[in-house]
Amino acid sequence: MATPLNETCATLERSLRERVPPLLTDLYQFTMAYAYWRAGRHNEPAVFELFFRDNPFGGGFSLFAGLSDCLLFLLNFRFTSEDVEYLRSVLPVDTDPDFFTYLKGLDCSAVSISAVAEGTVVFARVPLMEVSGPLAVVQLLETSLLCLVNYSSLVCTNAARFRLAAGPERRLLEMGLRRAQGPDGGLTASRYTHIGGFDLTSNALAGHLFGIPVAGTMAHSYVTSFSSLEEVWPQILAPCGGGDPIDFMCLVKGWLGHVCQLLGAKPQGVREGELAAFLSYAIAYPRNFLPVIDSYSVGCSGLLCFCAVALALCELKYQPLGVRLDSGDLCRQSVEVRHAFRECSKRCRSLYLCQDNEIDVVGVGTHLVTCTSQPSLGCVYKLVEVCGRPRMKLSEDPEKSTLPGRKAIYRLLDTEGQALFLILPTAAL
Amino acid sequence: MATPLNETCATLERSLRERVPPLLTDLYQFTMAYAYWRAGRHNEPAVFELFFRDNPFGGGFSLFAGLSDCLLFLLNFRFTSEDVEYLRSVLPVDTDPDFFTYLKGLDCSAVSISAVAEGTVVFARVPLMEVSGPLAVVQLLETSLLCLVNYSSLVCTNAARFRLAAGPERRLLEMGLRRAQGPDGGLTASRYTHIGGFDLTSNALAGHLFGIPVAGTMAHSYVTSFSSLEEVWPQILAPCGGGDPIDFMCLVKGWLGHVCQLLGAKPQGVREGELAAFLSYAIAYPRNFLPVIDSYSVGCSGLLCFCAVALALCELKYQPLGVRLDSGDLCRQSVEVRHAFRECSKRCRSLYLCQDNEIDVVGVGTHLVTCTSQPSLGCVYKLVEVCGRPRMKLSEDPEKSTLPGRKAIYRLLDTEGQALFLILPTAAL
Repeated sequence: MATPLNETCATLERSLRERVPPLLTDLYQFTMAYAYWRAGRHNEPAVFELFFRDNPFGGGFSLFAGLSDCLLFLLNFRFTSEDVEYLRSVLPVDTDPDFFTYLKGLDCSAVSISAVAEGTVVFARVPLMEVSGPLAVVQLLETSLLCLVNYSSLVCTNAARFRLAAGPERRLLEMGLRRAQGPDGGLTASRYTHIGGFDLTSNALAGHLFGIPVAGTMAHSYVTSFSSLEEVWPQILAPCGGGDPIDFMCLVKGWLGHVCQLLGAKPQGVREGELAAFLSYAIAYPRNFLPVIDSYSVGCSGLLCFCAVALALCELKYQPLGVRLDSGDLCRQSVEVRHAFRECSKRCRSLYLCQDNEIDVVGVGTHLVTCTSQPSLGCVYKLVEVCGRPRMKLSEDPEKSTLPGRKAIYRLLDTEGQALFLILPTAAL
Repeated sequence: MATPLNETCATLERSLRERVPPLLTDLYQFTMAYAYWRAGRHNEPAVFELFFRDNPFGGGFSLFAGLSDCLLFLLNFRFTSEDVEYLRSVLPVDTDPDFFTYLKGLDCSAVSISAVAEGTVVFARVPLMEVSGPLAVVQLLETSLLCLVNYSSLVCTNAARFRLAAGPERRLLEMGLRRAQGPDGGLTASRYTHIGGFDLTSNALAGHLFGIPVAGTMAHSYVTSFSSLEEVWPQILAPCGGGDPIDFMCLVKGWLGHVCQLLGAKPQGVREGELAAFLSYAIAYPRNFLPVIDSYSVGCSGLLCFCAVALALCELKYQPLGVRLDSGDLCRQSVEVRHAFRECSKRCRSLYLCQDNEIDVVGVGTHLVTCTSQPSLGCVYKLVEVCGRPRMKLSEDPEKSTLPGRKAIYRLLDTEGQALFLILPTAAL
């Protein structure tokens, strides 16, 4: 019997096979394959290398990612009759019909891949993947392989740079689904930012498919959906250790008075709807209280409501988790929030203890997923050998010339395991 | 019996259903839905509006796109048992089990959508889509709808801006699949750049699924795979109107001598491999000869090879289509190429006639698909009404405050059908 993990893998494989059929490529791969086939060259042994010319984001490294997707794609590379009929309808009318019979029989059983490991630190102009096999087949693979590697590696590298900036302790949450290039862009982002060093994702499907820990509590819409304390139901909550439910709303109202006094705030500035939203959420999830506090005003309402509910939860021995700041000057607001927590901790030590870092989790959405400062990685797929003879592309732009022939990558380490130097094939060599 | 079109639609619908299951959303939608459900508020009638705050690319308009995907998503919105079990495993342990029973029974039959038409010109802060229905359900839809609208509208708008810049005559080819956010990012780009005004795509699967005309001929790898004229086989070609095949290679060699003389070029600069590649391709596709001419040097080799093969094709009454320039100074090169065509047209008028425009088709890849200058559209989904009462979000950043209540969009046209003015709900009103 299949285990749940195997089932997930099977789902994933099926989903990838359906997402990346061999038709997902540029049309010119087929016109070239035809020209090779027509000249009887389609089975000549050929080698392509996949690499990029510059590290992204002006940085000094990249992470290579997408290999497992590439392997699944190769395993499932087969044209259906429908695919072939479509190609017949769009290729020039003088295409020899036998070519379509040839396509129907194609698979990647004669293709070999040699690649650096998924998630490896890599550098510009180093071959990340060497694809060898029959000329027409390895040509057909170009666009699909680039599509599977380019964005995966880019977003993985972007995530790693966020991780380096955030340091090893702070937790990082990917939350860019809504700004990704459609559903699969979002899934790819969740998956490869996790490989790049993010701890969490907001994307539930990515959590399900890839086993990435998921996180999230509430949006502004939840807060703004409440307008009065009358909407809070039930209003009671049992203490954490058990026992009779007590009137939680009454308890919170009491704490709100203390908090306003303590922080020198005016009770009339508190939004009743925001207090109702926090109360209702805390009653639903007393062990997971982490509201968004900037739906109206952090200082005049959100922070006061949070502290009142949090202190009431503490009184019932629950542990509030923290607050979420969504926009505005996050640094300034986090200082304001920390100050309030310190003041409140005089009343309830555990509230302070659970908040001894100013910012524990950083969620990144748009900038992470769209890689704003450089939204594409320029991986290319270049022919380097045919029939054992090296091939190169010259160009009037010397940067775009290729280094002919197959390459091996060496990394020379000293006895301590530290990098001695790296041999990089460059145009200058 | 299903027609091919219906089959394609069915495939597309199935593919979308599998791509956008209701789990493809942020986890906090579920924690909020639970809190609503726990408080007995989940069936309260609520209204959300989807809009963006600023036109992208510093421009004056956007195109709204993604509506049909949203509607398919809503039609297929149902949780499987596996989805629900996954949610049970990640939501807090104190979640009431009856909530999962509630999720299992959910669909969008009680949800209404009112939207501007797909492809409509829209402006900032105008509601593009109004989603009304039970509070918990319309909350759950947020991320998926944003994911389906944001990138589609962005890339459609980007395409429209390219169209405006290119003018109405020049044909535009989308070719960004390899730099998109994975397979679906590429498909979405092909589909919505077509709506935005592109004529063609290189993406064969997009052609198949959406009926977009496809185009493409050859990459540099095809050219560099040849090194000698001995690799050309067959070397004969029958005239267009029929008749005995003639020695095409011999004919091309003759024309190459004329071309070099005509253009004052040195025959020894011509790359034998490039000539072989063009010859071989022309013999395979004599009616579709459009080679990439900058694999080595346009002036010293690629252009000479093209002219020789093209003139030989003309002699056999075939019509060569043109050349592709891939990189470098495209304007300078196009002038050089045009000059050569003019010179050659003295020998073969039809070559000139088919090239009376300097650049007929422009292919755009990375910049089009990744929307480099602004890689995301900031569509948001804001609660505007619950139980018939307006809701708003205030913010310390006035730009982020919402205008409460449902809105109607009016466009006032004069008797000529010209826009008189547009009523925009803005924060200033």
